[in-house]
Amino acid sequence: MGMGEFMTETRQNLLPAVEGPGPHHGSVPVGRHGPPDGQEAAVILERARTSVDPELRRAVESLPGSMRRIALYHFGWQHADGTPAAANAEKAGKAIRPALVLAAAGALGGHRATAVRAAAAVELVHNFTLLHDDVMDRDTTRRHRPTAWAVFGDADAVLAGDSLQALAHRLLAEDPHPASSAAAARLASCVVELCAGQHADTAMERRCPDDITLDEVLAMAEAKTGALLGCACALGALYAGADDADVEALDAFGREAGLAFQFIDDVIGIWGDPRRTGKPAGADLMARKKSLPVVAALASGTPAGAELAELYRVPYRDGDLGRTILAVERAGGRDWAQAQAAERMARALDHLSRAVPDPEEAGGLLSLAEFVTRRNT
Amino acid sequence: MGMGEFMTETRQNLLPAVEGPGPHHGSVPVGRHGPPDGQEAAVILERARTSVDPELRRAVESLPGSMRRIALYHFGWQHADGTPAAANAEKAGKAIRPALVLAAAGALGGHRATAVRAAAAVELVHNFTLLHDDVMDRDTTRRHRPTAWAVFGDADAVLAGDSLQALAHRLLAEDPHPASSAAAARLASCVVELCAGQHADTAMERRCPDDITLDEVLAMAEAKTGALLGCACALGALYAGADDADVEALDAFGREAGLAFQFIDDVIGIWGDPRRTGKPAGADLMARKKSLPVVAALASGTPAGAELAELYRVPYRDGDLGRTILAVERAGGRDWAQAQAAERMARALDHLSRAVPDPEEAGGLLSLAEFVTRRNT
Repeated sequence: MGMGEFMTETRQNLLPAVEGPGPHHGSVPVGRHGPPDGQEAAVILERARTSVDPELRRAVESLPGSMRRIALYHFGWQHADGTPAAANAEKAGKAIRPALVLAAAGALGGHRATAVRAAAAVELVHNFTLLHDDVMDRDTTRRHRPTAWAVFGDADAVLAGDSLQALAHRLLAEDPHPASSAAAARLASCVVELCAGQHADTAMERRCPDDITLDEVLAMAEAKTGALLGCACALGALYAGADDADVEALDAFGREAGLAFQFIDDVIGIWGDPRRTGKPAGADLMARKKSLPVVAALASGTPAGAELAELYRVPYRDGDLGRTILAVERAGGRDWAQAQAAERMARALDHLSRAVPDPEEAGGLLSLAEFVTRRNT
Repeated sequence: MGMGEFMTETRQNLLPAVEGPGPHHGSVPVGRHGPPDGQEAAVILERARTSVDPELRRAVESLPGSMRRIALYHFGWQHADGTPAAANAEKAGKAIRPALVLAAAGALGGHRATAVRAAAAVELVHNFTLLHDDVMDRDTTRRHRPTAWAVFGDADAVLAGDSLQALAHRLLAEDPHPASSAAAARLASCVVELCAGQHADTAMERRCPDDITLDEVLAMAEAKTGALLGCACALGALYAGADDADVEALDAFGREAGLAFQFIDDVIGIWGDPRRTGKPAGADLMARKKSLPVVAALASGTPAGAELAELYRVPYRDGDLGRTILAVERAGGRDWAQAQAAERMARALDHLSRAVPDPEEAGGLLSLAEFVTRRNT
């Protein structure tokens, strides 16, 4: 169960429900250009990366040498030996959060260009949490490369993360835009929520799986993944000069879309193609992670759920991966997660339509929301 | 070599030079109340704690439960089991940084009360770095209690530190004072410098002692300890509406005073009374730490320096502590550190007198600078 990082998946439709017939089934309203497809989202993401990267890069380049080196590696701009790396989205991540900031600003009638610093700040916060989470979770691979701590050690990865958090706040503090202080306060509160979410996640991993409730794991996923997507959308709204109600609606939109994403991410973590996810097949199950489908399966009261609990009681043994996957599926974990993803998407669109009733104006946000739950490249 | 934390020392005059006759020997100009003594500093620190604690506590209380618990423990407001602890300065630290913010604001003609949030923000940043540094340095004791990571684990201590950094930035983002954005940008830059300093420190500990130059260890001490004291003074000046030159002079004052403090701290770490420092005698030497007197001794080109290098080449063996202490002393490490402390204090006072020529107006800052280098309780 990753920290909301977007893996490489090509047009693997894991969520037929979100393409259903009506808005309450989670489908996306049709705008001028027809239903948003992966192509449109790819264009939006590429445009966001083009706008935000120079700001992001300038911030990282301002770091003292020791911190700069780690940050440049983490962002995929340098190899571990300090030589320049060819920029590509796979190494740098998908820029979904900056794209949400810019799209939200545009949807609420603001100018995308004025929100570029806020977008870079959100991306810096995201990457600060990735650096720290990888240390805590002992994850050795991120974006198909060794994680920063695996290359530079724990201390340096933590310090580089600390520096990126500071850079995020500095970008906003130096931004003359009238919304920058409100945005900074909101981003700081979001960081606190992200920390609480990561705490809940690591604490849960140490607990007996049978003791964990669905409510707990949902709250954790909202704090860990939903909060920053919500904050990204809220910052865009703030920069567009939106009123409180619209800012909160955009936050709720991003949170629900983030939860929808997390459900899909957990499904892919179990049933996705390892050649596309870049992770070994069933890694989360072998590590006995309490992902959303797993907790749902454990709480199902079914014989398959009981079998899963039995399997999870002991560390992974060679050969029981197939049985584990099957148990989650038979206990309804996969169906539930997919239905939840569709439900969260429906709620997300509901929130969005309150702030931005015109589907054409909401187009960019819709494409991005669709993208994160369809998981096109 | 601690991260600028003030240990409990009672009127142990380790630095006769700073009490010399003239300003160029580092003595303190005489104000209306005669030369500042520990008593005056104690009053200033106590008053700062009284002003800032409610703001600090409100910020910490706003954290979600999991993060709040760790922060309350770290600040000495709760025991590890979550029961309230009697507040006392020994557990909460000496509030030297908030006191510098308030004193600097006052010295530059501002109102102390308006700078309380900035003072709390600086204290939050200081405590965020303590939480993280203790994890990296594997320090098990802080303020006479087990460190947060020793009680709650590494991940939670890192997350609580992350949360405190975020709280610091939120306090400034929510502060309507016209200087708050400039202060936030400056504090964020300071965090980056603190991280680079901590990186240099941990990297140095892994290197062969003979390869480390005095310049390197001085730069590290300035980044790790001087930067935040300088930032505290600069923030006070900003909140008083001071011009750029005065803000920079106050920053330089704090930096030099911070370096003076670090020299004294390192001297105490070797020759201080363990009953007063709260650390085992010679702990830094036994851990083969490259403190300022040690690096100076190693670089001295004396027979004692060579003997010290020999001792430092291997891990601590029972019985060689006495020889190690003597080697540092005979190689001139102690004398050099004390002379450097005096020199730094003289420079600090020089910077201060440019921005605040009237010793009476500078009184609070002078008392605090004197305090950190005399190390009264």
